[in-house]
Amino acid sequence: MNEQIPSHTLRTAALHYHEFPRPGKLGVSITKPCEGPEDLALAYSPGVAEPVLAIQENPQDAYRYTSKGNLVAVISNGTAVLGLGDCGALAGKPVMEGKALLFKKFADLDCFDIEVDEREPKTFVETVARIAGTFGGINLEDIAAPACFEIEEALQARCDIPVFHDDQHGTAIVLCAALLNALELQGKTLEDARIVCVGAGAAGIASMRLARSLGAKPEHLWLVDRQGVISTDRPGLSKEKSEFAQAPSERKTLAGALAGADVFIGLSGPGLLREEWLGLMNEKPVIFALSNPVPEIMPEIAKRVRNDAIVGTGRSDYPNQVNNVLCFPFLFRGALDVRARSINEAMKLAAVRALAELAKQPVPAPVLAAYKQNSLSFGPDYIIPKPLDPRLREHVAGAVMRAAVESGVARLPLPR
Amino acid sequence: MNEQIPSHTLRTAALHYHEFPRPGKLGVSITKPCEGPEDLALAYSPGVAEPVLAIQENPQDAYRYTSKGNLVAVISNGTAVLGLGDCGALAGKPVMEGKALLFKKFADLDCFDIEVDEREPKTFVETVARIAGTFGGINLEDIAAPACFEIEEALQARCDIPVFHDDQHGTAIVLCAALLNALELQGKTLEDARIVCVGAGAAGIASMRLARSLGAKPEHLWLVDRQGVISTDRPGLSKEKSEFAQAPSERKTLAGALAGADVFIGLSGPGLLREEWLGLMNEKPVIFALSNPVPEIMPEIAKRVRNDAIVGTGRSDYPNQVNNVLCFPFLFRGALDVRARSINEAMKLAAVRALAELAKQPVPAPVLAAYKQNSLSFGPDYIIPKPLDPRLREHVAGAVMRAAVESGVARLPLPR
Repeated sequence: MNEQIPSHTLRTAALHYHEFPRPGKLGVSITKPCEGPEDLALAYSPGVAEPVLAIQENPQDAYRYTSKGNLVAVISNGTAVLGLGDCGALAGKPVMEGKALLFKKFADLDCFDIEVDEREPKTFVETVARIAGTFGGINLEDIAAPACFEIEEALQARCDIPVFHDDQHGTAIVLCAALLNALELQGKTLEDARIVCVGAGAAGIASMRLARSLGAKPEHLWLVDRQGVISTDRPGLSKEKSEFAQAPSERKTLAGALAGADVFIGLSGPGLLREEWLGLMNEKPVIFALSNPVPEIMPEIAKRVRNDAIVGTGRSDYPNQVNNVLCFPFLFRGALDVRARSINEAMKLAAVRALAELAKQPVPAPVLAAYKQNSLSFGPDYIIPKPLDPRLREHVAGAVMRAAVESGVARLPLPR
Repeated sequence: MNEQIPSHTLRTAALHYHEFPRPGKLGVSITKPCEGPEDLALAYSPGVAEPVLAIQENPQDAYRYTSKGNLVAVISNGTAVLGLGDCGALAGKPVMEGKALLFKKFADLDCFDIEVDEREPKTFVETVARIAGTFGGINLEDIAAPACFEIEEALQARCDIPVFHDDQHGTAIVLCAALLNALELQGKTLEDARIVCVGAGAAGIASMRLARSLGAKPEHLWLVDRQGVISTDRPGLSKEKSEFAQAPSERKTLAGALAGADVFIGLSGPGLLREEWLGLMNEKPVIFALSNPVPEIMPEIAKRVRNDAIVGTGRSDYPNQVNNVLCFPFLFRGALDVRARSINEAMKLAAVRALAELAKQPVPAPVLAAYKQNSLSFGPDYIIPKPLDPRLREHVAGAVMRAAVESGVARLPLPR
């Protein structure tokens, strides 16, 4: 919708929204009775000593007697903020508050943001590990690659609560759900599809890993960064990029990689996919141009040149919006509801399948109304659920809970 | 009121209060419109980029566009929780949430708690300094002495927001306000009074420092710890205790120190002030027995033996409750409202004087009703305002704001 608002109007409206009548978007609320001295005697001295003693005896009781049980932290150092890049910890705060707001709105998780003024991965991890007990889960956000990989892995190893870098896995989960459905509609399978992904940052690497986990063949996963196709003969490759390095060949450019490809995934920048290259792709291609707000190719152009394509973007004003909000609130909802120790691969795969499956079910009238649509049914223009679909919570969180319990990372059984 | 509830009933009620219908006492709320896609386009992508860019240009704009402007963190490592001692970071969480609840209830400050699992002062400071930008102020809580002194000083030196250890200064401020009024009623002055303080932890040291700052003579300030009167001939004294070491004398015990004293301040443990020592004190003594829930001497006993005494405790079920909640919400309210860089001595002294002065004003009817009193007027049984007095906010926060502006630590002028 950004395109429908002139940029100076958006600027004025967004700043006004954030400033008035009070600064920011989040507040703290008291969730228990708190009127007279009797209430305060339970909330604070002397009554508060009782849950303290209980937690001292059994640390798991922190989930029963404190906000930890429903609390997620959005934590960032501001090194890769939205499309804006390295803004620093403080300037990233409006985005992190926005993310916390989405957790609250979509999954009723209490969530606040912590901006960590530290770029060095080990020190960042030490800092966050020391405060992690405060929360029931940690959503890492907008941390630049490759530090993000090391940070997430080290932090999860240190913590007994879920640590999840949404720019990696949230994107990967929603993208893979959309991809499974798009390929099915095109009569193809993930096992046979050749995939070209432009952008080898957090989202690109995680999406390729998840696609591989879902059955895509390593030799079919072509990762392209600023220097071209990532191949084993390139010196100085990071550990993560090496995982997807192809054998050296003449096809070193994006255009070369696209020849005979079934899937284009853009996680890079505006306009990177040129109109004239679209003809190089196989018949019935899938084109996900996810750069935001300006995609790698505009959908109307992609569809004009390739009317056999299924096209997705990151934008709400086109069909097939690949939007992380379809996943992260419900993934954490499920994880916290069974007190999962981590968010493992089984839970991520369960979220992918739940999202893909929900898109095949009839869309309820209120969802149609919210999007001013007469109908939405599984097909080239509806491969993934809409963010305001209220079924997402039960459907995705439920699948995630079951996977957590079955894979042994849940501390609680499934709720009745 | 704890004495009126049998302990097993209190235990059951307190645990139930903390657990149902949801864990803990705090939640996060969304403070801006957040219904349709238009709202989300301002709250998150693409509108959120605008405040990010504004803050990048001018870091002070974080106060305008994010929750920082009204946000206080309660931060603890759980090494000195209430009267319970070293409970560890996680077990202290119910207390820290309770403190945050008091900030919200009394001063409408948004406040959440961070439990830091770290005891070593330098590492604790490093950790908190890296996340400090998230907040508009930091209330340190329940950190054991002597680490608390080093931590607060180092952290304030690192941060450009107020850092305030309430166990030190909150106690000192309310205690000194009560002391000024009690001495006045007894026809004495702080300059001439001889003061014995039992307990040389965070609160004891800070109270003696603040009394000195208000005019008490160093040679009149006798600090007593577990080993007796602190004197210059004791080996291995901490820096803080050394400040109040008296010349060596024969009066090495609490009883010895009390001979001819005008003021007893108990910040120690239950029953430490023996009935038979009360006669050693000067006429018209002031006795503050602040150990909680069981004071150093029960007020009825102190009053029976010394009917010329003014007695205060930390309890709500006796007159003259010396309670930190009279200060910290309003001190931070004032500090944040003028975006103070720190809470300096001038602001603390202003809070003392504002509290002392308010006790001399007529008490409004709703306050009398809240405490089921027919009358409350300045005198031996009313030397300090009541916590539920709604005048506290404007009175104390106003004085603190003026002091911040006059002493040059405010970034904003006084509000109109």
